[in-house]
Order: sequence, then structure tokens, then C-alpha cells
Amino acid sequence: MDTLALRLYDEITRIPLVDPHTHIVPTSPASRSLVDLLGYHYFTELAHSAGLAKERIESATGGDLVELLLTHLDGVTNTVQYSWLVEIARTFLGYDSPIVEPRDARDLFERSVSRMSQPGWTEHVFQQTNLDALFLTNDFDDPLEGFDLSRYVPCLRTDDLVFKLDQSSVQQRFSQATGLEPTRLEEGIESLFRHFTSKQARACAISLPPDFSPERPAKSAWSRSLERILSGQGEAEDRQRVSHGVFYLLADRCDDFGLPFDLMIGVRRGVYESGVYQGQDLFDQRTSLDLYRRLFNDKPRVIFPVSVLTHSQNQELASFAWIFPNVVTSGHWWYANIPAYIEADTRARLEAVPATKQIGYYSDAYKLEFVLPKYRMYRRALARVLAEDFVEPKRLSESGAVELGKRLLRDNVREIFKV
Amino acid sequence: MDTLALRLYDEITRIPLVDPHTHIVPTSPASRSLVDLLGYHYFTELAHSAGLAKERIESATGGDLVELLLTHLDGVTNTVQYSWLVEIARTFLGYDSPIVEPRDARDLFERSVSRMSQPGWTEHVFQQTNLDALFLTNDFDDPLEGFDLSRYVPCLRTDDLVFKLDQSSVQQRFSQATGLEPTRLEEGIESLFRHFTSKQARACAISLPPDFSPERPAKSAWSRSLERILSGQGEAEDRQRVSHGVFYLLADRCDDFGLPFDLMIGVRRGVYESGVYQGQDLFDQRTSLDLYRRLFNDKPRVIFPVSVLTHSQNQELASFAWIFPNVVTSGHWWYANIPAYIEADTRARLEAVPATKQIGYYSDAYKLEFVLPKYRMYRRALARVLAEDFVEPKRLSESGAVELGKRLLRDNVREIFKV
Amino acid sequence: MDTLALRLYDEITRIPLVDPHTHIVPTSPASRSLVDLLGYHYFTELAHSAGLAKERIESATGGDLVELLLTHLDGVTNTVQYSWLVEIARTFLGYDSPIVEPRDARDLFERSVSRMSQPGWTEHVFQQTNLDALFLTNDFDDPLEGFDLSRYVPCLRTDDLVFKLDQSSVQQRFSQATGLEPTRLEEGIESLFRHFTSKQARACAISLPPDFSPERPAKSAWSRSLERILSGQGEAEDRQRVSHGVFYLLADRCDDFGLPFDLMIGVRRGVYESGVYQGQDLFDQRTSLDLYRRLFNDKPRVIFPVSVLTHSQNQELASFAWIFPNVVTSGHWWYANIPAYIEADTRARLEAVPATKQIGYYSDAYKLEFVLPKYRMYRRALARVLAEDFVEPKRLSESGAVELGKRLLRDNVREIFKV
Repeated sequence: MDTLALRLYDEITRIPLVDPHTHIVPTSPASRSLVDLLGYHYFTELAHSAGLAKERIESATGGDLVELLLTHLDGVTNTVQYSWLVEIARTFLGYDSPIVEPRDARDLFERSVSRMSQPGWTEHVFQQTNLDALFLTNDFDDPLEGFDLSRYVPCLRTDDLVFKLDQSSVQQRFSQATGLEPTRLEEGIESLFRHFTSKQARACAISLPPDFSPERPAKSAWSRSLERILSGQGEAEDRQRVSHGVFYLLADRCDDFGLPFDLMIGVRRGVYESGVYQGQDLFDQRTSLDLYRRLFNDKPRVIFPVSVLTHSQNQELASFAWIFPNVVTSGHWWYANIPAYIEADTRARLEAVPATKQIGYYSDAYKLEFVLPKYRMYRRALARVLAEDFVEPKRLSESGAVELGKRLLRDNVREIFKV
Repeated sequence: MDTLALRLYDEITRIPLVDPHTHIVPTSPASRSLVDLLGYHYFTELAHSAGLAKERIESATGGDLVELLLTHLDGVTNTVQYSWLVEIARTFLGYDSPIVEPRDARDLFERSVSRMSQPGWTEHVFQQTNLDALFLTNDFDDPLEGFDLSRYVPCLRTDDLVFKLDQSSVQQRFSQATGLEPTRLEEGIESLFRHFTSKQARACAISLPPDFSPERPAKSAWSRSLERILSGQGEAEDRQRVSHGVFYLLADRCDDFGLPFDLMIGVRRGVYESGVYQGQDLFDQRTSLDLYRRLFNDKPRVIFPVSVLTHSQNQELASFAWIFPNVVTSGHWWYANIPAYIEADTRARLEAVPATKQIGYYSDAYKLEFVLPKYRMYRRALARVLAEDFVEPKRLSESGAVELGKRLLRDNVREIFKV
Repeated sequence: MDTLALRLYDEITRIPLVDPHTHIVPTSPASRSLVDLLGYHYFTELAHSAGLAKERIESATGGDLVELLLTHLDGVTNTVQYSWLVEIARTFLGYDSPIVEPRDARDLFERSVSRMSQPGWTEHVFQQTNLDALFLTNDFDDPLEGFDLSRYVPCLRTDDLVFKLDQSSVQQRFSQATGLEPTRLEEGIESLFRHFTSKQARACAISLPPDFSPERPAKSAWSRSLERILSGQGEAEDRQRVSHGVFYLLADRCDDFGLPFDLMIGVRRGVYESGVYQGQDLFDQRTSLDLYRRLFNDKPRVIFPVSVLTHSQNQELASFAWIFPNVVTSGHWWYANIPAYIEADTRARLEAVPATKQIGYYSDAYKLEFVLPKYRMYRRALARVLAEDFVEPKRLSESGAVELGKRLLRDNVREIFKV
């Protein structure tokens, strides 16, 4: 980065973060050792991709696992994911090297255990990360108890309701959570929204396959299909209709309860059947936001923060957010979360979408320590775009550019989700 | 931009323009006030997207409308569209600020009225813009009278004929324009071509939805479907067949009359149903130039300047223009008309397509004042590509690079459209 | 390029190449004159695209053809393909000019004949190119005799078997090559693999259309369809089933014989029907690696070096190679083989895919002289990415970056193909 971009980077790094999408467990937010960090699917899947057998990953523990993974991350030191590990080791473990050497595995593991078990570790990570609050990903039957709601913001994750209602286990969880039979789906869902919003939930969220094309089912067909699904006799057509119907029910409740509905669009689950845990999903570039046209028209008061998986679909996202008042660009998701795409996509969004409608980034982290390196990666890309597209051509002063950065990093999260 | 790119930018800015696609009305080409400028759908749709109710936009007038819109463009000052407004205010209204402040709305409105009503305003804008001539977008029943044909080049726009022949209003306009019943479609279309070419029309043009896949209908099926359509009894299949048939008729006449046929591919109309005027259309990235394979083979003597809506389809466009002698790359259209895509797409085209087959840019402007900022945006991107890809690696001298720029900005328009 | 990138470029240029995909004929690898060079389809198709009639290209010979083509390459001097010609003229013909002037056509032709007919020309080109070995593209019935197997590595190209088995000429070639009736297809294919691997073949390869979606046919359906195909009575459905079946048979044998299976995905053959020789093929961006999901799961021990045709599909490729241990990124193919896409795609791959799973480049050359300019183009892009993404942000030292370059340029080819 040139000196201007570096200055901007330093400035936007001072903006306290509210991370609007993570998978952090609020009762155990930080890692307990390097095992938790290296257990992140990014590392296990890359090690596996580079040749390490899944069985070996799954059977090792503790220092052995750390050594095994570090040894097999040898071929992936080029990746940006690996650079997160290096940044974590440097920032949180005092290990200063561009490569996390396999020979240091035991030492590092011990050091991580000792540091991370100290009282105040979580607080320390929050402060180092300059993190105010973060959003959770809560199953619909999560009691949402035992944690600080001002720091950990609940978010109702609805994949199970939309796509797995034919599973008896999901039906049972539904009954237990709502005290209602699944046949009383609509009432039950409403009670879930009451429960979640009473606990300061600030969003409803779902991930969607590339061919999902929701339309509200006709009432009678919906009832019939729901009945079949719940009695275990649903066909493919019924399953699809119920998915659509539940999806629209959720959108209706988002409308009533004033919750934004995060749509994460394009993931195909279980593509690599023998992949490591959470390392089996991919995507199909043949998808379009046109599939959500009906929805965006039908629910004008619901804000839809939309994430897409491909750089090419980012143009659709920027264009739909440019036209639809209720469509908001949201972060850089998963396979699009690498600098090559982040920077290009950020540039296009800033050129075409109202700044007030852009949620710059979320970490998607499973453990607290990942928030820092991932946001750093984003801020580097953002600083370059602010420098080249705004400050250098004199469209904004440096402080104006920092203000724009603050909007993307913090203000919009607070305003859109009413945090 | 570095100094080399700046020098190239200055040089190519001296090349007089022929703008090969606008929506300018030749009897009222320039704006009469800031209302005309801010009424451009780019601003109304962005203000609406950022939260301003459509009803408020539609009910305000004059200085009130200017104030209303400027106030609500607050959240979109980051966009490149907003930068066009700033350049216009600076160049044509003597207003020198990176933000067009809402508090200056009344003043600016008054100033715009006074400046723009001065005699010679249109001439002034032509000269400031360094603009020789521009292409119009004329309905098929446009009399093409009352304007200077050497400055305003007619272009036969054919969307209505291809997609709306089932509407009785279109049928009536057809009869009035041609003096023929719509049943005598082929003769009528020929007479339109005679009329347009007698008025120096230089192109036929159409915008097409992403799933349009033209094939010439068999004769008997065509007659049957046309009859049904004209008698108001057409089914979806008839409508599609008639669209295909009329489209092929137009291509035939382009062949006979030596007119290039501008294809603007990929727009989906009316996606956002409650959008502001002209702010309802979007696209679907799932389209391919492969859909036009038959056409490009069938009509080898017709030149097809092709515009696409997506950065990803630009690779198809560059590749089809590389292979098919009759396919020409044309400008940077609508949702692809932002610097992030213009620069990347220009680079790819210059690497792969004969320079003689590239129409660098068109403004798509509704009012004359927009030609300048939009071409500036394009020239900045072009200057950077010429600097980095041609002059720095010593493939071209600076004057050679300016010559290449002239080819894209001017020579090709003149040669391809025979202006 | 800045000085750092230039230094890296110089360093990685010293790495001896093993080119893992060419169409070079080992008994006549180098050009005999400028006619062979200009006969490369990249030049004939660009000259044709720029206006030169196919008939004139096909009827001219020798110096006339050289003059004709150079004259008509006038409009394509901007293209990167033209820059290859300039680099060849400079490096191999001692012609130092940024344009290969038509007026020099006769002289250059004579010079090329005289230089290229000198003994040791092939050796000279190998040395200038710093080329150790290259892969061939061999028809299934190639005897693989008469050349040095350590320098020219056979590769079994299988398009004919998969897509043209309904042609009697292919059936006859099969019988002649294997000594078996085509009904004994499985045995015959096995004998081809024995033959090829006995001649040090190191890969099986195929190019595939954008809608190919292989699935292993059920045994009885397969037998029936194969029988129909071989008796000339196959329907479209039979042809597809046989294509799928043969494709899976090949994958099975790759598994048994330990051969990587190069998949080049996305080409549509014969799109421009009147195109020059080898200048008729294009693509359709609407394709996905999701079509190969079943295959990648079914054959975990087969390494699939995958090439794609579009920049947008590169993200799929990087992502599939990130997740599937048996998917490897392979080069920059055909319409994606221009710097605009090479650089962006290289960047994304280096950020997301284990370095050990990336085959950086192959030349796809038909004549030996093209290996040098094409690899130079790639190395320039690679040097820029190494400089900006690795050395500047201090993720790698300069020598570390050169090592990473060596991995992509050489080590992976040797390890993956066991050369």
C-alpha cells in the first residue's frame, strides 16, 4: 500500500467495530487453545485439500493435532486464510514469523493454552480487536440465555425451518421451543419472533441454495403440502412449497417485527461428500437475484441485507441495491471473501450504491480471535479503494474518506439493525 | 492518475466526439434548468433507493424538487453518478464544490434557469463538450423533422415493433406511420427503413431481455401467429414467434439498407414495480451471446454493435467480436457503466478485439449536459489503460496511444456507421 | 512494471520450463517459416475478424500469404496476440520494431525460411525458451513413435472417443489402433492406456462443452445405447449416454493407470460456421463446475487439472480446488488467456488454493516459437502478483516469491504429472 492508503488504513482501524454476522458461541467466545483456531474449517479443509487425510485430522487432538495441521499447511502458506493464522499468532500469541513453523507446534500449543486460559482473555481479545459488539447465529430453539445481550446480539437463523421441516428432529425442536404442534406453524413462528425480539435479536437470517426461487404458495396448496410434510409423506414438490411458504412466513414476521432479513445466497451444501466438517459446501455460479424479484417487491418494508458468493453476482447485488430501496449490500461472503474479490466488489459498490445502504463487512468468525485478521483484510482493501477512488481524484478529503469508511464499518450496522 | 495517464487524458480530450447513442430530443437537446438534470433517472432512482418516497419526487416541481432531491442525494455522494452532477455543476453552472449542497438548491436552480435560457446555450454545451454530432433514439413513427440532420443522427429504435405488436396502440402507430395495415408488416417495415434512411438514419437499434433467443420462424407458423397477434388472440407462443419474426425482418432490412443493428442485450424491464420513472429495470446475469449464434451466422453482412449489461458477459462480447467479423463491441451500458467495470472491460477488449471493431463509448444521455461528464469518466479509464498497457510496456508511443484512443472515441463511430 | 516486479520477472524467467499442454507435432516442432507462425489460428482469425476474407487466406501461400496477413493485421496491432508475433520477430528473427510492417513481409519471410531451415533451429528455440520438455496432444490412435519421449511427453487426447464414436471413421481408427471391434470398447480403451503409458504418457485430456454433465450410465442402458451408436442407429439420448459412459471409462482407467485427467471445460465447437480453420469455436458463460460434482466425488484418486474458459468461472475453479483434494487449477485457457484475466485469476488462485495444486501455465502452442512469448506474458502477470500480494506486504521475501513462482511454473508440473 502506498502512504496515503496506509494513513487511511490506520485511521479506519480506530473505528470500533460492530460485527453483524458471526458464528461465535457467546458462552465460549474465545479460543481455549491453538486447537480451536486451527479447527476452523478454513484450515482443516485447506490442509485436507493439500493432501492430509480427513481421518487423520479427525483422530488427532491437542498438540498432536496442532503439529499435524501445521505440518500440512506447508503447501497453503500462500493463501489469505493462512495469513489470518499468522496475524493471530503475531497479535495474540506473541509469535513473530511469516510462517507458523511446524517445529514450533508444541511450544505454541502450550503457550496458547496458558495465555487463553488466563482470566480476562475474552476481554483482552475484544479490546485488541476494537470490537464493541457482535451478532450471533442462533438456532430457532436457542433459549438465548447466559450471556450479555448488549455485547452478543441474537440473530434468528432459519435454515432448519425453511429446508428441514420434513425432519422429525426439527419438528420436535419446534414443538419444544414453541410449545405448539408443528401444524400450528404460523403461530409457532410468531412466538419465536416474540422470543427473539424480547432478547434484543436484531436480524433474521438464512442461507439459500443457488436455485431457490421463492414464491408465496396458494393457501390451499400450502396447507395440503404442509400436512404431507409433517406426516412424513411429502414429495419433492411439497418440500419445495413448504420451503417457499415458510420463507414467506418469515418475511411476513420480519415485516411485523421490524427485523432485517439477511439473505446469504448461492451455497450448495454437501457438494464434496467426503470433506472435513464444514468443508463440504460449494456453489454454482448460475444463479441470479432475479429469483428474488417477487420477494423484493412484495415486502417493501423489510430490509434485506444480501450476501452473494460470486464476484460476478456482485454486479447484480450492486445493481439491485441501487434500484430497490429495501436491498442492502452485505459483506463479502465465504468464497468471495478474498482480497481479489473484496477490493473489486467494494469498488463497484461504492461507485453504484448509496453509501447508507452498504454493510461493509462481517467476520463470519467461529472464534473471537478471527474477527481481527479478517477485518484487517477488509480494511486494507477498503483503504486502497478510498485512496484511489476518492482521495486521489479529490472527490473526498482524507477525513471525508475516513467518514465514508466509518459508515461502511460501523454506522450502517447500527442504523440498519437498530443496534 | 499518474502523470503519463493525465497527459494521455488531456490529449484524448481534444478529440471531437460523435456520440453514437443518446436519448436526446433534438428539438430540446439541452436542459432548461437543474430540474431537467436532476430528473435524470439516475438521480431520482438513487434518491429513491436511499429512502425518498416516489410520491414526493413525483409531486414536487421547480426549486422545490431541486431542494428535495439534493437533500436526499446526501447518502449517494459516493456514487459515480453523483460525480457527474458535480462535474456538470462545476462546468456548466460555475459551482465549485465537491458536494452540491442542499442549502444552495434555490440559488442553483435560479442560476440554472438563467444560464440555460440564454440564447446559444445548446451551442455552448456542444462546444464545451467538444461534440460534433450525436445519435438519437427515434420511435419507428418519428417524423424526423425539425432538426439538423448533420448534428442529430436518427436511429431507428425497434423495441415496440418486436415486443409490443400485440398492443393496439402500437398497431395504430404503425398504420399511421406507414399508411399500411399491420397485416402488411413486411412492406410497412421496409417503408420505415426507406423513411429513416432518407433522413440519414445510421443505425437500427433494440434492447433485448436476457432470455431472448431469436430464430427465424417457419413461414406458415409466422403468418398464423402474426394473424393471431393482430386479432388480439395471440398466446405466449405466438407473441414469441412474432417477436422473433419481426426481429429477423429488421435484420433483413438492415442487410438491404446497409444499416448496423445495435443490440443492447440483457435488460429485464419492470423488475422493481414501484420504482420511479425509468428506474424499474434490472437484469439477470444468466444470459449468453450464444443465444445470438444463429443470427450472427445468418446475417454476415450486417454489422452488430453489441452492448452487454454485465462485466462477466464482457468476456463473451470480447470473444465474439474477436471471432465474428460482424460483431463489434459497443460502449459500456447502464449497470456496466461504472469505472470499475469500464476500465476492466476496456482492458480486456483492447487485448483481444481488433481496434477497428471497438466503439469505445456512448453517453446514453437524455440531456446534452450529461455527455461531457460521462465521456470524461470513460476517458479517464481509457487513459489509464493506454498508459499501463501500451505506453509503459513500450508497445505504443504516446502519440500512438492517442491515435488508438481516437480510433475508439471517433474513427470507428464514423467508419462503422458511415457518418 | 515497477522495479520490484521487474526483478521478480527476471528471476522467474530463469526457471526452466516444462510446458504441460501444447499441440506441437514432435516430428516437426518448430516453424519452417513465417507462414507457420502466421498460420496460427490466432492470427488468421483476427485478420478475418478485422475484414480479410477467409478465401483469400486459404488461397495464398508463402510470401504472398505473409504479406496478405501482415497487411490485414493492421487493425489488430493492439491485441496481445499480435504482441506475441512482435516478440517472436524480435527474439527469433532479429526484427526490432513494435509493428511487423507489411512492407517488410517479403524480407521477413525470406529471412524466416533461411533461419528456420538451419540445422539446430529446434534446439536453438528450446534453449532460447529455456524449455526442458513439453506435453503433446495425441490422438488415441497415435503410434507415438519417432521422437524423443523425454522431451516430448505424450498425452492421450480423448475428445474423439467421447464425442465422435458414432462416426464410422472414428470406429475404424479405434479398430486399427486396438485390434479390437468397437463393441469391445472397454478392453480397447484399456489397451490404449497400456500403449500410451508404455510410451511415458503423463496425462489423459479432453475438452468439454459448457453443458456437459457427466453421470455414469446404468449398465443395461449403456450397453443398449452403445450398440445403437455403433450400428448407426443412435438417437441424441444414446449419443449422450455413450459420451457419459466413455467419459467415465476414461476416468476409471486414469484411476487404474495413475494418470491425471485434464478437463478443459466450456468450449462450444463450430459456433462461427464460416470461420477460418480452428477459428470457429466459442463458449457460453452459463456453465458450472457443479456439473462435475459427481465425478469429483466418484474418483477421489484421480487428479483433475481443470481449465475453464471464463474469468467468472475462475472463481468456481479456485473454490473447487480449495475444497476438493483431487481438483487442480490448470493454466489460462484460450479466451481467458489474456493478461486482464490471467492477472486477476492468478491473484484469486494464489489467495485461495494451496500452492501445490496450481499448474500456473501451459502454452497451448502449435509451434515451438510460441512457447516463449506466451510464457513471458504469463510471467509478467505472475511477477506483478508476486510483487504486490507477497513481497510488498512482506508476506514473502523476494527469494520466497521466486520459489513460489517456481512451484507454479515447474515444480507442480513435475510432481502432479510425475515427469
